[in-house]
Amino acid sequence: MDSHWDERYAHRAKRMESSAIRELLRVTERQGVISFAGGMPAPEMFPLAEVAAAAERVLRCAGATALQYSATEGYRPLRELIAERMCAEGVPATADNVLITTGSQQGIDLVGKILLDPGDPVAVESPTYLAALQAWHAYEATFLAVPSDDRGMDVDALDALDSRPAMIYSLPNFQNPRGVTLTRERRDRLVRSARRQGSAILEDDPYHDLRFSGDHLPRLIALDAALDGSAPYSGNVIALGTFSKILAPGLRVGWVVAAPEVIGQLARAKQGTDLHTSTLDQMVSYEVLRSGYLRGHTAALVHAYRRRRDAMLDALQEHFPVGARWTHPEGGMFLWVVLPEPLDAADLLRAAMEEKVAFVPGVGFHPDGAGCNTLRLNFSNAAPDRIREGIRRLRRALDALARVGGEDGQVRSRRSALATPAEVSR
Amino acid sequence: MDSHWDERYAHRAKRMESSAIRELLRVTERQGVISFAGGMPAPEMFPLAEVAAAAERVLRCAGATALQYSATEGYRPLRELIAERMCAEGVPATADNVLITTGSQQGIDLVGKILLDPGDPVAVESPTYLAALQAWHAYEATFLAVPSDDRGMDVDALDALDSRPAMIYSLPNFQNPRGVTLTRERRDRLVRSARRQGSAILEDDPYHDLRFSGDHLPRLIALDAALDGSAPYSGNVIALGTFSKILAPGLRVGWVVAAPEVIGQLARAKQGTDLHTSTLDQMVSYEVLRSGYLRGHTAALVHAYRRRRDAMLDALQEHFPVGARWTHPEGGMFLWVVLPEPLDAADLLRAAMEEKVAFVPGVGFHPDGAGCNTLRLNFSNAAPDRIREGIRRLRRALDALARVGGEDGQVRSRRSALATPAEVSR
Repeated sequence: MDSHWDERYAHRAKRMESSAIRELLRVTERQGVISFAGGMPAPEMFPLAEVAAAAERVLRCAGATALQYSATEGYRPLRELIAERMCAEGVPATADNVLITTGSQQGIDLVGKILLDPGDPVAVESPTYLAALQAWHAYEATFLAVPSDDRGMDVDALDALDSRPAMIYSLPNFQNPRGVTLTRERRDRLVRSARRQGSAILEDDPYHDLRFSGDHLPRLIALDAALDGSAPYSGNVIALGTFSKILAPGLRVGWVVAAPEVIGQLARAKQGTDLHTSTLDQMVSYEVLRSGYLRGHTAALVHAYRRRRDAMLDALQEHFPVGARWTHPEGGMFLWVVLPEPLDAADLLRAAMEEKVAFVPGVGFHPDGAGCNTLRLNFSNAAPDRIREGIRRLRRALDALARVGGEDGQVRSRRSALATPAEVSR
Repeated sequence: MDSHWDERYAHRAKRMESSAIRELLRVTERQGVISFAGGMPAPEMFPLAEVAAAAERVLRCAGATALQYSATEGYRPLRELIAERMCAEGVPATADNVLITTGSQQGIDLVGKILLDPGDPVAVESPTYLAALQAWHAYEATFLAVPSDDRGMDVDALDALDSRPAMIYSLPNFQNPRGVTLTRERRDRLVRSARRQGSAILEDDPYHDLRFSGDHLPRLIALDAALDGSAPYSGNVIALGTFSKILAPGLRVGWVVAAPEVIGQLARAKQGTDLHTSTLDQMVSYEVLRSGYLRGHTAALVHAYRRRRDAMLDALQEHFPVGARWTHPEGGMFLWVVLPEPLDAADLLRAAMEEKVAFVPGVGFHPDGAGCNTLRLNFSNAAPDRIREGIRRLRRALDALARVGGEDGQVRSRRSALATPAEVSR
C-alpha cells in the first residue's frame, strides 16, 4: 500500500525537504565526534536546579492549572512579563500584543500561515536561517535573496529588488548562520523602507541576550514603534523571541510580539495547529523568569560563550589556511567560514567525518543554491579545549582534501552538499 | 498601520475563524457558571503527585537531556512504548511507525499539511470535531458531509458520495461531539471501502481508553493491518492518539501511528512547524507511562466519568421536555442533544448564560451549517451534583425560551449560532 502515498501528498509536501542539520544531528551523536553542526546551547549550563524547583513549586501550588488545557494566546502572567520587558525597550506593549508559541520556530510557521499565499515573495538574507526557508516552503512562498555583508542585510539591495516583498525576514543580532549584526544605521533604514513599501518585517531575534561585546542596538520593533506612535503597539513589525537560548530549548517556549490584530489572527491559526503551548512549560518558564534568576544566568552564558567564540577564532587563526575568511560575531552561537574556491564544503564534511568533527555546509542556508564553499560553525556546544581540538581536526580534513584534490584534480559537484548523512559519512 | 493588515493576510487566513468553543471558555470562566462547554478532563483527578515525582526524577537523572533540543520524531523510548502497545492491539508497529506530536491537534494539522491541496475533498461525519474542520480550513480543503446515526458514520452514505475523498476522517470511539461509537460491522466495511477507493483514513481516537460499558472494539488501523499484512505496518490508516485524556492535556503530548514513509513526511512537516515537542513533557509522560500507574488511573477515570455520564442521562430524563432526544455514549466526554424544532440552540445558550450554565451549540460542528437545534454537553468536567444542578438550570433556560417564543413567536436565525461570546452573553 505504501507505494501509493507518493501520489497522495499535497503539492506543498513535495517542497518539504528534511533539514540537513537535523539529519546531521544523528550522525554527530556518534561517540567521539566533536560537533560544530547543531545550534545547541551548552547543556552543562542548563539551570537544572532552578527548573526543578520551579516545576516542583508550580505542580504543588497550581498543579491542576498547570496540567489542564489553557488559553491559545498563552499563560497570561507570562504574556504580561514579556510585554513589560518590551515596554522597557521602547515598545508600548500590553499582554494583547503577545502570543506564546511552541518555540519561536512555531512563530515562523504561524506568520507564514497567515501571511503567505503561494508565490508570495519573501525577502531573506542570503544565507539565512534554514528552518525558516523550510517552514515557508510549506506555504509555497518564493524567496528574494538579499546579499548581506559584515554589517548585516544590504538594505540598498533590498530597496533595489524588482518586486515588493510581502514580508522581509531579518535576524538583526548575530544572525544565523553568519553571526553578523545589522548596524544601527541599517536598522533605521530597513524599518523606514519597509513602512514606505508596505512590506511587513519579521524580526527573528533568538540570540538577543547573548551579546559578548559591542553596544546593545535597538530592536527593529522598537524603531518601528517610535515611528508608529500607536499605543498599544500596532505597527509594521512582527517580532519573535524565545527562552530556548537563555533558559532551555527542550521546553519549547517562544513568543510573538505584534499588533493586537495580528496576534488575534496568529492565535486563530494556532488553535488549529496545536491548541496551545504546554501549560506546564509556560508556567515553569514564568517561575524562573520572574525570580530574576535569568539575569545572572544570562551573564554567565555570555561569559562562557565569549570564551568559546574566542577559542574558535584563535584556533581558526592558528590552523586555517591563507585564503579562508570567517566572521567575528559579537554574540550568538555561530560563525561562518568562506573557503577559498574551488573548495567545496560538502567534500570537506566528508573528510571531516573521517576526522570525527562535524559542521553544516553553507549551501542549504542559501535560498539560491549559492555558497558551496561556505560552512557554519557552532561554538556554544563545546568547551574551549574541545573547540581547539575540533578546529585542528578540521585542518587535518582540509589537508586530506587538498591531497585528494591534488591526486584526481576533481571538484565535486554542488549537489553533493545536499547528500544524505548516510552518503556523507560513507 | 493596523488597518493595512487585513489586506496582507493570506487567502487561507480568511477561512480561519476563532473556535466558538475556545471563545466560550472565556465566558464560562466567570464565577458560578456550570460549564458543559469545553472538553476538559476533571482537574481534581489529575495525577499531580505522579507527575511531580516524574518531573523530579527526569530532571535529577537526565536533566540536561530533558532541557535540550531533541529529535523531531520524538523521544525514542516513548515511541517504542507506543509501538509496543499498538503491537498488543494487532498493529505490527515499531518506533519508526510513531511520531510524537504537540497534542493530537498537531497530528490533525500535520496530516492536513502533507495530504491536502486546496479543494481536496475530506469526508467527515456531520457533525464532527470542530477543530479538525478549523485545521483543514487553513489548507483550503472542502468537506463532504457524511451523516451519522447511533452506530456511527453511515458507511453506505460514504460509499455513495459523488466524489472520492482524498481522506476519510473518523472518530470511531465516543465521537466528538455526538458520543456515538462506530460498530464493528461498520469498521470492517469502512476499512475495506477506503482501501478499495484509495482514500486514506485518519483515525482520531482521543477517548480510546475511556470506555464505561460495552465491549472494546478493534482500532481501524488494526483492521487495516490485518488486511495489509505488511510488517512494519505500512497500510492505509493514519491513527492519532493522545495522553490528554488519560494523563494531562496541559503537557501537549500526542502521537501519530502510520506507515514509516508517512511518519517521515510528517516529521519533515513538523520540523518547520515546531522543531519538536517539549522534551521535558515527553520524558515526564514516558516516566508516568512506564511506571504502569496509568492503568489504575484510567480505571479510576472510567469509574468517575461513568458516574458523571449517568448523572447527566438521569437528569436529562427527569428535566428535559418531551421531544428532545439525546445520545447514550459508552464512553468519552460528551453527549449530544437534539431539541425539538424550531428551537434554536443559540437562543438557548443566550437564555442559559442568564441561568449560569453553558454548553456548545451544535451548528459549528457541522461542515454544512446544519444542526441549529443541536447542542453538545460535556460531562467530564463537573461532579455529579453540579451536573444535576446544571441540567436543572438548562431546563429553566428552556422554559424561559418557551415563554419568549410564545410572546413574539419568533425563531431566531441560524446565523446567531455563530455569534461571538460577547453577543451571546448580552
